[in-house]
Order: sequence, then C-alpha cells, then structure tokens
Amino acid sequence: MFTSLPGFREFYPEECAVQNYIFDKWRQLALRFGFQEWNAPVLESLELFTEKSGEEIVQQLFNFEDKGGRKVTLRPEMTPSLARLVAARANAIRRPVKWFAIGENYRYEKQQRGRLRAFYQFNADILGEASPAADAEIIALCAEALRAFGLETQDFRVRLSDRTLWFLFLESLGIPEQTAVPLLSVVDKLERLPPEDLLKAAASALAGTACDAGQVIESVRAFVAFDSLDKLEAFFASRSDTLGGKIRERLGEWRALLNILGAMGLANFLSLDLTIVRGLAYYTGFVFEVFERSGDGRALAGGGRYDALVKKLGGPDMPAVGFGMGDVTLANLLKDKGLFPVYSAAVDFYAIVLAPECRPIALADVAALRHSGMRVEYSFKDGKFGKLIQAAEQAGARHVLIYGPDEVAAGVVKIRNTQTRTEQLVPRTSLMEQLCAIKSTPT
Amino acid sequence: MFTSLPGFREFYPEECAVQNYIFDKWRQLALRFGFQEWNAPVLESLELFTEKSGEEIVQQLFNFEDKGGRKVTLRPEMTPSLARLVAARANAIRRPVKWFAIGENYRYEKQQRGRLRAFYQFNADILGEASPAADAEIIALCAEALRAFGLETQDFRVRLSDRTLWFLFLESLGIPEQTAVPLLSVVDKLERLPPEDLLKAAASALAGTACDAGQVIESVRAFVAFDSLDKLEAFFASRSDTLGGKIRERLGEWRALLNILGAMGLANFLSLDLTIVRGLAYYTGFVFEVFERSGDGRALAGGGRYDALVKKLGGPDMPAVGFGMGDVTLANLLKDKGLFPVYSAAVDFYAIVLAPECRPIALADVAALRHSGMRVEYSFKDGKFGKLIQAAEQAGARHVLIYGPDEVAAGVVKIRNTQTRTEQLVPRTSLMEQLCAIKSTPT
Repeated sequence: MFTSLPGFREFYPEECAVQNYIFDKWRQLALRFGFQEWNAPVLESLELFTEKSGEEIVQQLFNFEDKGGRKVTLRPEMTPSLARLVAARANAIRRPVKWFAIGENYRYEKQQRGRLRAFYQFNADILGEASPAADAEIIALCAEALRAFGLETQDFRVRLSDRTLWFLFLESLGIPEQTAVPLLSVVDKLERLPPEDLLKAAASALAGTACDAGQVIESVRAFVAFDSLDKLEAFFASRSDTLGGKIRERLGEWRALLNILGAMGLANFLSLDLTIVRGLAYYTGFVFEVFERSGDGRALAGGGRYDALVKKLGGPDMPAVGFGMGDVTLANLLKDKGLFPVYSAAVDFYAIVLAPECRPIALADVAALRHSGMRVEYSFKDGKFGKLIQAAEQAGARHVLIYGPDEVAAGVVKIRNTQTRTEQLVPRTSLMEQLCAIKSTPT
Repeated sequence: MFTSLPGFREFYPEECAVQNYIFDKWRQLALRFGFQEWNAPVLESLELFTEKSGEEIVQQLFNFEDKGGRKVTLRPEMTPSLARLVAARANAIRRPVKWFAIGENYRYEKQQRGRLRAFYQFNADILGEASPAADAEIIALCAEALRAFGLETQDFRVRLSDRTLWFLFLESLGIPEQTAVPLLSVVDKLERLPPEDLLKAAASALAGTACDAGQVIESVRAFVAFDSLDKLEAFFASRSDTLGGKIRERLGEWRALLNILGAMGLANFLSLDLTIVRGLAYYTGFVFEVFERSGDGRALAGGGRYDALVKKLGGPDMPAVGFGMGDVTLANLLKDKGLFPVYSAAVDFYAIVLAPECRPIALADVAALRHSGMRVEYSFKDGKFGKLIQAAEQAGARHVLIYGPDEVAAGVVKIRNTQTRTEQLVPRTSLMEQLCAIKSTPT
C-alpha cells in the first residue's frame, strides 16, 4: 500500500475543511487591511534562494536539476519571489505595495511537532514605505490574524525587537560594524547556549577587535534586561554624543510604532523583548516573533523589516517589511483550545426516489435547487423507503425530499424532517420557496 | 534580474483574483452537488505514478531523488493520490464517496497555448458506485462547472463515448480481448494519422490475429459515424447472439445515463462521439471530453470511469468515475469571451489624517471598522489634504474619511465621496452605522 512521503500531509475532508477555515480567515482579514493577494510558482531557480540566504540553505531544500538542466528547488519561502515580482514592475505598481499570499513551502528538515517538510504560510508584506507606520500595519495584521480565530491576550504575545537599535547599541560598546552581524548570531543563542560555549562563540565573533568577550556578554545581558521603552529611554537619556542622538531618534520611532499599535487597541498583545534578533541576516530594522503564552510556548509567526533585499535580488532600492505565519502550529494551538468550528459535510437537502418513473421529476428539482445555490444530494438508486431514508440520514441531511409515485402523481413533494420525523406535503410549484424558508430556519 | 521558470506562472494581484474567481466557482458548485473537498501532497513517491501509468510517464515528470534517497516527483495528476487516500480508509468512509479537489499539477512538457508546466485542475470523483447514475452525476457537475461561468450550449459540448461499448464492438469484429487496448490507441489517432500510417498502426496492433487491418478500419469508421443512441440501437437491434444481448444491455445503460442528464436539463450540451476513446489505458467505461465549440476547439475537461485503479494501487475492488478540468484553457476562453468580472482592488474606505494629534482617533476608528468586516486603508503619513486625497483616489476608494484637527475637536468625521466630491460630517458615535449604510448603497 502506498503512503505519503514523511513530513507531507494528506487532507481528508475534515482536515481540508480545517485548512479552508484557516485560509479563509487569513484572506478575509488581509483584504480588510487593504492587502491584495498574489501568488508565485512553488518551483523556482535555486539561485533565487542562495542569492538571498547563502549556499548553506541548500542542505534544507528539495532541490534538483530538471530535464532541461536547470538547477531548481521547491521554494522554502515566498519572500524572494515577492521581491522578484515587485522588482520587475517597480515603476508601475502603486506604493506602498500591500500584498499577501497563502502558499505552501517546503524544507527538508527533521520532523518534529509543529515542524513538517511541507507547510502553508500566510505572508503579508508592505514594500515602498520606510516609516514605522508600515511596521505597525504589519504587526497589527499579524496580531489580528490570530485574534480572528478567537485567540486573545492570554493566548499569545508579540515580542518586539529592533536590529537597528541593536547595531547602535553594539556601536556604543565599540564593536566595529562588520562584527555586529556575527555577534547578533551569538546573541540569538544567548538563552540556549551554556555560559562557556557562549563565551567561546562571542570571542570567536569578536576576534580581531579590541573588545573583551566577557564584558560584551555582560553588557548584552544588561541590555536585553530592558523590557520597556521607558527604561530604554531613561538609560540612553544622558548620552550626549552623536551616537546618543541617533539612539534617541530611533527610540522616537519606537514611540511612534507603539503609539500606532496602542491606538489600534493592541498594546496588551505586545512586549519589548530584545533577545529576539531573528537569525536571518537580511533583517534590517524592527523584528518580531509571536509566541503562544500557554503550553510549550510555540512560535506562531515572525517577521520584520528587510530594506536591502529587493535591491539585492536585482530590483530598485525599496524598503520592505513583512511577516510569515505557519498553519501547522496555529492549527495545533486552535485544536488544543477547542477553537475549531464543528465540521459538517451535511447537505441542505437529500432527495430520495422510490420508483424509476419518479426520477425525471426528482432530478429536475435537484438541478433547479442546486442552481439556486442549495446543497443537494440524491439517491443514485431507486429502492425501498427505509433503506433510502437511512442513507439520507447517514449523509447528515436534516431534511429529505421524498419522490414516490403518489407524490409525483399529485404534483407534490413530501418533505421529511429527519430529527422530528415529521412530514409535510408541498406543491412542486412552491417547492423552492418552501425550501428557502426551511433552510433559513435555525436548528 | 531573476525570472520564473519556463511554463510556470506568476500571479500579480489581477491574475490572482482571476484564479480565486475560478476556484471559488468550482468550489461552490461542487459543494452544491454534495461533494467534499480533499487535498494531497504536491510531492509523492515516483512509484505511485509509474504503477498507474507505466515507466514512460517519467519523461514527462519533474522527478528527482530527495536528500533521503527517495525517488519522488511533483505530481502530474491527483487521481493516484485520491485512490491511495480512499483505499486507506475504504471501510470507514461512507459510500458513494463524492470528493473534489483543486490542486496544481506539474508536467515537464513542451509549452504551447493552453499548455503550461504547472497548471491547476479541478478534480471531482465518485467512488463506490458502479451505476450510470454516478457517471451522470460526474458529467452533470462537469457541465455545470462551465455553465457557472456563463458558458452555454453555443460555447461548449460534452462529447460522450464508452470504452465498454468499444470493447464489445471490437469483440463483434472478432478481435481478441488482449488486442483491444492497443487497437483503441490506434482508434485514438483515427482523425490525426494519414490513411497509410493508420493502416500500418492497425496492422501492427492486429499482428498475430486473423483480422484484416483494412477491414477493421472500415468497420471502425462506420461505427464512429453513429452520432446518436437511436442509430446505435437500430444497428444492434437484430443481432441475436449473446454478444448482441450484452451490447443491448450496455445501450440500456446509455439510455439511463442520457435520461438522467436530460432530466437535469443538460441534453443540449451532449453529443455522442465514439471517436473519443481517451488515450489512457486505465479508463474502463463511459468516457467524455469537453470541447470549446467556437475558436480553435480547445479541450476544456475530460474524464470517465476507471473501475480498476483503486485495486491496482493496493485498495479494495472499488468502482470509480471522475473528471479533471484545467484552469489554463478555461481562463483563456473566459478572457476571450469577456466573461471575467472587472478586477477591483478598491477598499471600502480610505482614512486620511491631516495632523499627528488626529492619528490616534483615526486609527481607533480604522481598527473598529476593520473588525466590523469593512475594507479600510489609511494614510501612513500625515500631510496636506490635496496630496492625501490624491493617494486615496489612486487607491480606488469611493469614500474618504477625513480626520483633521477641526473634525477631531468637534467629535465628527468628514466623509467625502470621491466621485461626486460631496462631503458630509458624521458624529463619530454614529460612524459605523453611517458607513454601513453608505457601503450597502449601490454605486
């Protein structure tokens, strides 16, 4: 017997309904925020991703050579494709570009809970706008995309950080510019590495500089302990040099960001968390990660500003900010919290036909009802009432339309409520009207 | 500058909207027919497809070896995955199984109009029901899936044929059973091959039998000239042997099929066309192809009965019938006929903010309106009225909400109609109510 590949999911109807529920919510919400949907191929040139992320990404890819000798890969993410599309029409597209996509991505990784080899992601990005207003809009959409499922402040938190502020802070420690990115990779492991390994990693990143790794780690620990903008402002208030001015200017952008999100009613979903630096080197400004607050604190989404990418991939200089939210951890969380709607495959009406000569009349009605937008099934075979009504009930139909010789001769349809087991006769001429009324009656 | 791979499409928002329009129509219609949606991985074991279609399919595939040494391929179609999923739960699933899927498939083929290397397909299948009622339901859904876009009898025709009838007819010519399938491959080329090549191909298929290729071709030409069930019935009416009885029994199933489709109002969409045999060997009964009637007569969909596949792929003996409809030729046809709705990225309302102190109030309203389901954008920057109103008009907003210091101080919002350029002041306390009324007013 064949099976699916490890890390790839099959979607039986109940599971497909869950996917559609999630995708619909995401789509509706993005449209409300004035985002437009786009899409891109799942197969792309390998180079598109190595150009963005370096050669080491290849080990995580489903890459191969196609029959035309092209080096191609299933996409691990959609952002490079986005940059490519926007770059190609940079002069024609109205800015800011507010686009979203829902697509499947593929990574050859070790499987674990919440991590599969094929997963869907909701991506939203704003391009062509450098101000914190764009960051705020992206963060607001990200938070609302979780609230749309009924998740609230007790369920998740958006942890905000800032690579621009990090670079300024590292500069204030006397760390040279070219050392900042490798050092941020060390900061990324601050809470995961044992102290001695951390010291070694910092010393390695700082090799060739005059900085003492131990002192830098101590300063970094003090810095990441700031958990509010007020504290940061107080700490840097007295610094009178140019760098102090730059830092205060950046903290002003923080204030603008938080004011916007506050005005939108999202203050309680945010926390300032400077331990977040996002591993990927391409982030350039505000960065954020969204974590579940209960349970095992799984990551639900992440994003940030990446002002250099469009240019790097051949486009114009264009600021950009965005996020990605996966379907796997979200679906697990919603399931754990009982936040999925009950799945029902039930049709509105199920027609049963008791004799062959009744079939043409029944089928004409079925076709007309379907045209009017109702969900209708019917029995493929004629047969005895008992067996047919059982099939209709197994199909979950609340109402059964019965076409027997007597009904057809009298120009009526018998409508049976499968729950109350009550029946009524309705003239075929007013069938549509009656069924509309029945359908709109709550259970 | 990076580009997409040949035969793969990018979807800018206008194109993505077209896709969504098509997918939504398909989905709605399938649900009305009582079908349930399923989905499967785009990457599968290569063997799943070679088992169904033979080794020669590999030349058309995007296949490769993954990092775990598995022979895998992007799926060229979804039917084997369907058979796999149904087979795995054959005892648990209510029958008949009525499932549909909308998914992308991949074939490494030469590109031409209407043929890409990545294309979406709407698949619908009924499993577990052998009677012509299931074939009729599938054909009805296929026809209605085109009618849903405004295509009617002048636009397309469903050409019906029957491999069961073909096998019986070939038996009546004295052609042995094992020769029938290769001969049907020749019939498939009846109208495409020059007479001498056809004769050669027939002779090759008939090698080792006592049949004369020329005579067989003549009989086949006479057979495919029958274009109605009445003519077929008349032709076989006098045959008195067992085979004649079998043929008349099969023609009775044809009558049942056509009666159902007639009762559903679809008679005018059908034609009997025995030249259709479907190249694929796995079809076992009724087969059909849907062709555009105007223009270059492109194929829009195709399908048929494939009763042996589920068992072949490791499942139980389970009859099955289905169709596939691609998005590429359909979209081309709808475009040619002007049957796409006009694309609009326009939001319902666009808020502009004239001074920084007005922003918190404006953003609170924007958040509330979005929560209520409206599509709202706002200006990321404060600024002069003229420039902001221009941005709002470029965004396509019919109504602009204006937040200036005077309005905010007075607790009102100025609503401007960008078409009539009329303005009204509305108290913030009744803003939602007013905007609901405006939104529901037709243009």
